[in-house]
Amino acid sequence: MKLVIKVTGKYFDDEGDKSLLPRAVRGLVERGNRVAVVTGGGSTARKYISMGRSLGLNEASLDLMGIWVSRLNAFLVAMALNDLAYGRVPESLEQFIEYWSQGKVVVTGGFQPGQSTAAVAALVAEATVADYLVIATTVEGVYDSDPRLNPEAKLLPRVTTAELKRILETSQSVKAGTYELLDPMAMKIVERSRIRVLVTNVNRLDRLTDVIKGSGIASIVEPV
Amino acid sequence: MKLVIKVTGKYFDDEGDKSLLPRAVRGLVERGNRVAVVTGGGSTARKYISMGRSLGLNEASLDLMGIWVSRLNAFLVAMALNDLAYGRVPESLEQFIEYWSQGKVVVTGGFQPGQSTAAVAALVAEATVADYLVIATTVEGVYDSDPRLNPEAKLLPRVTTAELKRILETSQSVKAGTYELLDPMAMKIVERSRIRVLVTNVNRLDRLTDVIKGSGIASIVEPV
Amino acid sequence: MKLVIKVTGKYFDDEGDKSLLPRAVRGLVERGNRVAVVTGGGSTARKYISMGRSLGLNEASLDLMGIWVSRLNAFLVAMALNDLAYGRVPESLEQFIEYWSQGKVVVTGGFQPGQSTAAVAALVAEATVADYLVIATTVEGVYDSDPRLNPEAKLLPRVTTAELKRILETSQSVKAGTYELLDPMAMKIVERSRIRVLVTNVNRLDRLTDVIKGSGIASIVEPV
Amino acid sequence: MKLVIKVTGKYFDDEGDKSLLPRAVRGLVERGNRVAVVTGGGSTARKYISMGRSLGLNEASLDLMGIWVSRLNAFLVAMALNDLAYGRVPESLEQFIEYWSQGKVVVTGGFQPGQSTAAVAALVAEATVADYLVIATTVEGVYDSDPRLNPEAKLLPRVTTAELKRILETSQSVKAGTYELLDPMAMKIVERSRIRVLVTNVNRLDRLTDVIKGSGIASIVEPV
Amino acid sequence: MKLVIKVTGKYFDDEGDKSLLPRAVRGLVERGNRVAVVTGGGSTARKYISMGRSLGLNEASLDLMGIWVSRLNAFLVAMALNDLAYGRVPESLEQFIEYWSQGKVVVTGGFQPGQSTAAVAALVAEATVADYLVIATTVEGVYDSDPRLNPEAKLLPRVTTAELKRILETSQSVKAGTYELLDPMAMKIVERSRIRVLVTNVNRLDRLTDVIKGSGIASIVEPV
Amino acid sequence: MKLVIKVTGKYFDDEGDKSLLPRAVRGLVERGNRVAVVTGGGSTARKYISMGRSLGLNEASLDLMGIWVSRLNAFLVAMALNDLAYGRVPESLEQFIEYWSQGKVVVTGGFQPGQSTAAVAALVAEATVADYLVIATTVEGVYDSDPRLNPEAKLLPRVTTAELKRILETSQSVKAGTYELLDPMAMKIVERSRIRVLVTNVNRLDRLTDVIKGSGIASIVEPV
Repeated sequence: MKLVIKVTGKYFDDEGDKSLLPRAVRGLVERGNRVAVVTGGGSTARKYISMGRSLGLNEASLDLMGIWVSRLNAFLVAMALNDLAYGRVPESLEQFIEYWSQGKVVVTGGFQPGQSTAAVAALVAEATVADYLVIATTVEGVYDSDPRLNPEAKLLPRVTTAELKRILETSQSVKAGTYELLDPMAMKIVERSRIRVLVTNVNRLDRLTDVIKGSGIASIVEPV
Repeated sequence: MKLVIKVTGKYFDDEGDKSLLPRAVRGLVERGNRVAVVTGGGSTARKYISMGRSLGLNEASLDLMGIWVSRLNAFLVAMALNDLAYGRVPESLEQFIEYWSQGKVVVTGGFQPGQSTAAVAALVAEATVADYLVIATTVEGVYDSDPRLNPEAKLLPRVTTAELKRILETSQSVKAGTYELLDPMAMKIVERSRIRVLVTNVNRLDRLTDVIKGSGIASIVEPV
Repeated sequence: MKLVIKVTGKYFDDEGDKSLLPRAVRGLVERGNRVAVVTGGGSTARKYISMGRSLGLNEASLDLMGIWVSRLNAFLVAMALNDLAYGRVPESLEQFIEYWSQGKVVVTGGFQPGQSTAAVAALVAEATVADYLVIATTVEGVYDSDPRLNPEAKLLPRVTTAELKRILETSQSVKAGTYELLDPMAMKIVERSRIRVLVTNVNRLDRLTDVIKGSGIASIVEPV
Repeated sequence: MKLVIKVTGKYFDDEGDKSLLPRAVRGLVERGNRVAVVTGGGSTARKYISMGRSLGLNEASLDLMGIWVSRLNAFLVAMALNDLAYGRVPESLEQFIEYWSQGKVVVTGGFQPGQSTAAVAALVAEATVADYLVIATTVEGVYDSDPRLNPEAKLLPRVTTAELKRILETSQSVKAGTYELLDPMAMKIVERSRIRVLVTNVNRLDRLTDVIKGSGIASIVEPV
Repeated sequence: MKLVIKVTGKYFDDEGDKSLLPRAVRGLVERGNRVAVVTGGGSTARKYISMGRSLGLNEASLDLMGIWVSRLNAFLVAMALNDLAYGRVPESLEQFIEYWSQGKVVVTGGFQPGQSTAAVAALVAEATVADYLVIATTVEGVYDSDPRLNPEAKLLPRVTTAELKRILETSQSVKAGTYELLDPMAMKIVERSRIRVLVTNVNRLDRLTDVIKGSGIASIVEPV
Repeated sequence: MKLVIKVTGKYFDDEGDKSLLPRAVRGLVERGNRVAVVTGGGSTARKYISMGRSLGLNEASLDLMGIWVSRLNAFLVAMALNDLAYGRVPESLEQFIEYWSQGKVVVTGGFQPGQSTAAVAALVAEATVADYLVIATTVEGVYDSDPRLNPEAKLLPRVTTAELKRILETSQSVKAGTYELLDPMAMKIVERSRIRVLVTNVNRLDRLTDVIKGSGIASIVEPV
């Protein structure tokens, strides 16, 4: 199985133990899967964007600050994976394709201003013809409303791509940026290549095979 | 003045004389402007995408075929500009920023799958804090409906960014891909950085200064 | 066995099915051979050279236009080979050597102005110490005169390198560029490293093992 | 005058206004000086090193985490300098030399594990034959003992390179890492190329010309 | 076992047979070891440094002359190792890490001015978590005094890192550059990562496994 | 005037003073000319080729050894030219074009196996549309026979390209490699782009302007 795992930048926010992710990836590789990892930027990204804004940087350069931090996170994960991972972080999809062709885990951060790391992950899933794009985030999956605003929000174990798109478009919280899953570019890639998406809590990564089999909490988003 | 000129790939479709564009750019530079050029792919791009599709390539790889052709067009223009242009075509916004910092015209094609060269041009306009993003296309500007379907379509000499967005979203022709100006990613960049856009016919490029002053046929899109 | 296959640019001229070449390469790899592929430019190269000439480009830059198109063809083949091929097209022999050292099929276009892709293929055959340099072209092999001018031209199933050199030097058609096999630089490499050359029709690539064994129409060129 | 300015990573520790440094560099350039800037990593570097250590990374990889953060700081400064700076952060002295040859300010972070950014700055000063290597730090200059431990510590306005070396070697605080100026590699470069060093408070950077003329608080370290 | 072998530049001084080193590396790889090789510059490096000095080059540029020659030696060894080695010489530790991640022998020369190839070898040993850093030199191991000055010098088969450091620091000959083993930067890396060092004659490389087992003349330097 | 100067590798053979070349280039640049320099490999190249041969390297790899040495010579010259030269040696014509577009002197060695540095120089002259390709060698110009074999050989102050071609083809000494000026590839480039060639003694480089004006010993080769 080919898996692309997109890890929220929040995972890197504190200085605590980060071994869950490399351990999970190692487990997946040892069971014969091919894995690509995409890391977000988190609070360090926001810190540098804030400094950049105070210096009058344009939006593209601000995005680049965040992209560099996401690559720093990617590099940390690649070094922790040691001999399992390609020893460099790609800076574009073309570099990703080059590195990926050599058989190792490739860990990547952002590619380009104007798009989220979710869009990067969707592109990577498309280019590798992945079985699943796994979005490892801070909630348990896709809800019918924002679980952080509405305590009654219901987890949806199975959603169609079209339904997810509708939820994302109507949700106020999306506009406010508090409940980000897939930005429009990521959504467009997911749609055009009919990529299956699995949304789950980053803490569940070490049981990902169970989650995929359906015996763990998560949402699966499928074309039909 | 800083100008980013996005040239439709159709400009490169036949083997005819291509000197209009380099001549126009040379004129602008000689009058003290800084210029970046973004080239589309045109029919050669479509030919390679079609071959790729027959070979079963995934969507990301198909997009890369088109991107390579757009870079070929960019390289042709750069070589024609000779000593005015940076002697290499950037393959990402980061490379664009590096080359641009050296004071020459930079000619670029596509950057990445999943986005149009219009989005590339918007990113470049944002990163250079350009005065105008010029969309040099096959029609005369922005119309209230598709001029190729509706002979009564009216050219709009001045539109707000919000109005353009509405026109693009409601136009059937956009969905059919026959009347492309700005894809959603390009639109988002134009909005967030309040970039002024000038839409005009590629044949008018050699009178671009007039067009900007208002004495030529075109549409100007402004934030307010 | 190590094989370098040079494919005529004409192979890419129409938009038709291009699966013969990737299928042939896959077959060879699956039977334990190591394969490098070198692609020519074809009519798209000629189109861009023609545009460049109308723009007054110098000869070196015109050659570069053709080289870029040959790399585009190489990239198409690499993407079609998928996980069998190194995911990037080398732009020099040094890059070829780097990519080749990693065990995959490497697909390359032109390297440098002033030399044909046949010269590239000869260099690649030399650097990889290939068993055969296969020239996959539009005729069936080496003839005693140009088969397209002379209907009586006789196919030579076995030629020495010295004989081939004499045929190429005396042939008027070589000067006219209509019957190209090996330019002088390619010839020099073939001679100095005593490379065995097999000339055959590109349509026969899927039976290349038979052809090498002698049970297919082709010409074999050997040092003595 | 050619100046290499090494800025302590602490400068980037909080999210506050960072305009002092770009403003100072702009002032120097406008007065005809050539400037290179070397940035340290600060607390973000320490955060990532700490995460890396919890993941069992080797010392070289841990150093690389810090180097990446120092490059992030360098990129922030380069973007803020806008058209004054080369638009990319070099990753080795060889890249620095390439970028520097193009006449712009070059901003760099760390180069390689096993050495401090002070050593990077000394190398850069050597390669550019700089008039001064300016160490912009959190104290006012070189003291006869550690000013943060000993309130009686006396600022030394003029020191010989040999004296500085003796102070650094005998100081307990150096071993504890709390009063770092020049590590042994930086010291060796400074000695062999007889580089003049100016140590001053980072807050004084906008009056650097005065400081160099002797009318500002600082220490000047000279070969004899 | 993972081995980093640092070969003295003197090995490349004459035009004689150089097959000992590639043969030894091949033997080690065939017995299941992973090997990195670091080559010095030798007399060709000194020739170019001397030419550079006559041209008034700065010390950093002079070091680069030597580094380029050491890379030339590395490239020679890589080409001789053929399909065992990664087909390119890394120019920094980051490139080394990238190339190393692909499973081949990596051959490297110098990385950066201001440090010896012994420091490069120590960094490589640290980054690969090598079992031994092998210093293949022109003497038989570590002596209690310089064997070329003192015929009574005694070979020390086992030394602690601390003892070696003391010997290197007190030896007059070190200052004179005639008996180089580890410069201060190399020593620092060896100490901080507790790397085991084996010093032996370059002529003994083809019996390195015996030497490691203790049945060959050499010195082993260990942390305690 | 645009000049490409090809300097024989013999210039770098001994460790003596090498200041003639950088001084001559500086003089040309100060008088408003644009200059590119191409350096040969010389005896160090032959030493490494000889070592490579004893190691069984293929011809392409042997050529690469020589190319690396010619780049080392190029780097020495670039460093000596200091702020006049682009701070990196290009490794292909495409890199040369990129570096050249930035207005500095570019110093280059070999590009690719299978061709001489004279061919490199011809390519560079073609790509820069140079006024003269200057071949700075160990004899005074073009002779009617080899001046080192025949003491009666007559210097030809003016030759047509066609005459030079005939001399080179009929000369026995060319085959023996003792009297090399232009190999067939270089000759082909010179012909197709009608490049004017000036052959003179490397010792005359500091009076090159006089030589071009006709008041110094040299041969000028012109298309008609």
